[in-house]
Amino acid sequence: MNRVIPALAALSLAATTQAETVAPLPPLERVADNALEGDKNAWDFVEGITTEVGQRQAGTEAEARGRAWAVAWLKAKGFKNVADEPFMMPTWIPGEPGRAEIVSPFPQSLAVAPLGDSASTGPEGITAEVVMFKSVAELQAAPEGSLKGKIAFVSNAMTRTQDGSQYGFAGPTRWVASGIAASKGAAATVIKSVGTDLHRNPHTGGTDFPEGVTPTPAGALSNPDAANLERMFQRAGGKPITMKLVLTPQNLGQTQSGNVVGEIVGFNRSLPPVLLACHLDSWWMGTGAVDDGAGCAIIAAAALNAGKAGQPLRTIRVLFAGAEETGLWGSAAYSKAHLSEPIAVGLESDFGADRIWRFDSNFRETNPALHKKIAAAVARFGVSAGSDVAGGGADLNIVRDQKGALVDLQQDGTRYFDLHHTPDDTLDKIDPVQLRQNVAVWTQVVGILANEGMSIQTGTPIPSAPAIAGQ
Amino acid sequence: MNRVIPALAALSLAATTQAETVAPLPPLERVADNALEGDKNAWDFVEGITTEVGQRQAGTEAEARGRAWAVAWLKAKGFKNVADEPFMMPTWIPGEPGRAEIVSPFPQSLAVAPLGDSASTGPEGITAEVVMFKSVAELQAAPEGSLKGKIAFVSNAMTRTQDGSQYGFAGPTRWVASGIAASKGAAATVIKSVGTDLHRNPHTGGTDFPEGVTPTPAGALSNPDAANLERMFQRAGGKPITMKLVLTPQNLGQTQSGNVVGEIVGFNRSLPPVLLACHLDSWWMGTGAVDDGAGCAIIAAAALNAGKAGQPLRTIRVLFAGAEETGLWGSAAYSKAHLSEPIAVGLESDFGADRIWRFDSNFRETNPALHKKIAAAVARFGVSAGSDVAGGGADLNIVRDQKGALVDLQQDGTRYFDLHHTPDDTLDKIDPVQLRQNVAVWTQVVGILANEGMSIQTGTPIPSAPAIAGQ
Repeated sequence: MNRVIPALAALSLAATTQAETVAPLPPLERVADNALEGDKNAWDFVEGITTEVGQRQAGTEAEARGRAWAVAWLKAKGFKNVADEPFMMPTWIPGEPGRAEIVSPFPQSLAVAPLGDSASTGPEGITAEVVMFKSVAELQAAPEGSLKGKIAFVSNAMTRTQDGSQYGFAGPTRWVASGIAASKGAAATVIKSVGTDLHRNPHTGGTDFPEGVTPTPAGALSNPDAANLERMFQRAGGKPITMKLVLTPQNLGQTQSGNVVGEIVGFNRSLPPVLLACHLDSWWMGTGAVDDGAGCAIIAAAALNAGKAGQPLRTIRVLFAGAEETGLWGSAAYSKAHLSEPIAVGLESDFGADRIWRFDSNFRETNPALHKKIAAAVARFGVSAGSDVAGGGADLNIVRDQKGALVDLQQDGTRYFDLHHTPDDTLDKIDPVQLRQNVAVWTQVVGILANEGMSIQTGTPIPSAPAIAGQ
Repeated sequence: MNRVIPALAALSLAATTQAETVAPLPPLERVADNALEGDKNAWDFVEGITTEVGQRQAGTEAEARGRAWAVAWLKAKGFKNVADEPFMMPTWIPGEPGRAEIVSPFPQSLAVAPLGDSASTGPEGITAEVVMFKSVAELQAAPEGSLKGKIAFVSNAMTRTQDGSQYGFAGPTRWVASGIAASKGAAATVIKSVGTDLHRNPHTGGTDFPEGVTPTPAGALSNPDAANLERMFQRAGGKPITMKLVLTPQNLGQTQSGNVVGEIVGFNRSLPPVLLACHLDSWWMGTGAVDDGAGCAIIAAAALNAGKAGQPLRTIRVLFAGAEETGLWGSAAYSKAHLSEPIAVGLESDFGADRIWRFDSNFRETNPALHKKIAAAVARFGVSAGSDVAGGGADLNIVRDQKGALVDLQQDGTRYFDLHHTPDDTLDKIDPVQLRQNVAVWTQVVGILANEGMSIQTGTPIPSAPAIAGQ
């Protein structure tokens, strides 16, 4: 492993000459430290795309404008081999803003948004009695056909967690409740938002109708509105609660999306690249700042920084995936197109812009030396080594399909689900100080990985790679 | 001054008999202390009206349902002389949800809501270039006619304050900017919301077009959207920014609103009553929880509590004013109808539900003994005596018109302008602990005032009142 390449050695020498009494930091560490205080690229990216493009719903012209914007940005910053690799995918759009009105006994409107893959009620809407379930399990226990013509309401709530693990607990309310309700004859489903805030902003996101179940209209109520509906059940004294629901999404059939890629070209192109992923699409309501403009900003800034420490041994490739939100279409397309091209290691940033607090890999047992080296290098940024086996983000299908090496840089998700998939996902939610901490940690980790000559998974020589690196 | 009336003395005696070793608190203090821990009436009111009625836009059937609900609640709780005193007022309604779209150079939609008294763009909207002003003063300095056919955007921001004093600094952006812009030929005006939060919830509220200025469409952008528009100006490189604005409010002409009143009848009906005010109407977007369901909840609960300490000397009257938000119509109507009937003292609760931290009156110099007595009595709830001259709330026109006594119980407004006039004004924003502190302080103050036999303004005997109280 030879991380100090000629250009870096020269830089170190120059620094030593200028200030002989202070030992210079190794270049990568210095670049990472500088990022912590002064990185401007990440903010420029996420400010730019949220201001000049805004929402980037998958498969639409807005997502296409987002790709064009990102391609131009990557080229302007000096990335090489920048491309927009197109693919086709089934496109769903939300239609007019959703409306939910309690018709009786307590007439008032509730804030609602359609879930991805929801069917349309038509502009005239559906008016039906609401049946409340406290959980998916309770809904599952409802007799077949018992929901015929009714609107199912699932009121399961999400609790705030730092590691985001409650997404697994609360997420099924969105992922499967509408399919279960539809299979029992429900005319439509509304859920309490899968989110931790108390604003009148519904949390959208994909829902799923299993094979053989005809999709129905499905929407998320904001948490204050869902709480209001629960109180109505307490106060109605058994009287039926009737809701008018208007959701008008449309399926557009196959449209084009794309994966944007760019590279900091490595010293040894025969070595598999380091792949940094994020996704460029967003749901339509916010401007895709924390989900996932920030992720693309972080990985791009880190790749640029790693390059500033001298040309890396391996190529660093950024993958701004398309159409993640509506079904991981970009991740699947990228893996399909490039499965035969080995990736050295994959990392994804897709959990907002708050600080990184934990590092995990899936090579802790197979390459403990490298795992420990990374852990030691990020400790100064307040990042501890975890014991989870890294699983990689949604856009790293290619690495999982190749059974390759993965690193997870776990961000603080305490407030992530306040914003996730809501209109409130806007630039002002990003703390520039924490964003820069992300860039610093990523710079450090990416720099180590991109200058690792051995197999990242095993720490052993790579059979097919030449023993000595060539330009 | 004789605050201990026969019923109270009897109650004290009974308590002493049961627990002779512990001196009982005076009844009023005990009732106030109990409210701090256990008041349920205030929560029941605000939960009930926000759940069973929801928004109560002035002059609409929703406000009428709110009045009917409040009348029923007051009667059920034992208030006497409960009435809904009707009046006519000009009614403005918001129409369809507002839409603002940047057409070029950065196409995306922005969250907007019409301001009260905004004109309509018609359903087809207005498309025009946006001209940005950083303040009302900057707008005022624009040459006459310079805004012809353009959309004026005023980006002045509001800072968070505990006493709400920044409303006076930032409020003019909403109150007068659209009138000034219209007088200079603007086709429409959009403002940065007068609010301190960063959610995609525009803050509505009344705007004003002076005599002779034809009203134009006027809307508030949410703060994140206003910030986005400001960044667009920075990034557009001088290119014009074009917006399509669709606001469809309507003026319905004269419709009926009403003032709901109810009384805890005093021992001596010849003495002027203590008037506790709030307003029952709300803007259409939220459910009127903090503005001002909470205020009505607090004053009603306090009146009931003051009654629990034995029949007060003076009548305690609650006034749930109608149509405050759209022009203080209820306050004006109440003063017009009852100006000849003296009020002893007026207090209003209309600043949310967070804790009371300061007490002010307008009789500190004319009746220092009573002022000091109140200050001493509320100190145990963490309320200090201020040096401001109380001005009373918006619904106390009658007291100001009578040049009468006023008390202000100043609430903590730190987060009030996060919620004010937004969709986020919902029950979940009310902290039950702080709500009860309000009830406790109000109970204490109202109990003292309602048992004060002398003039509240001067501390001298009231010439027209009989010397001895009669049942």
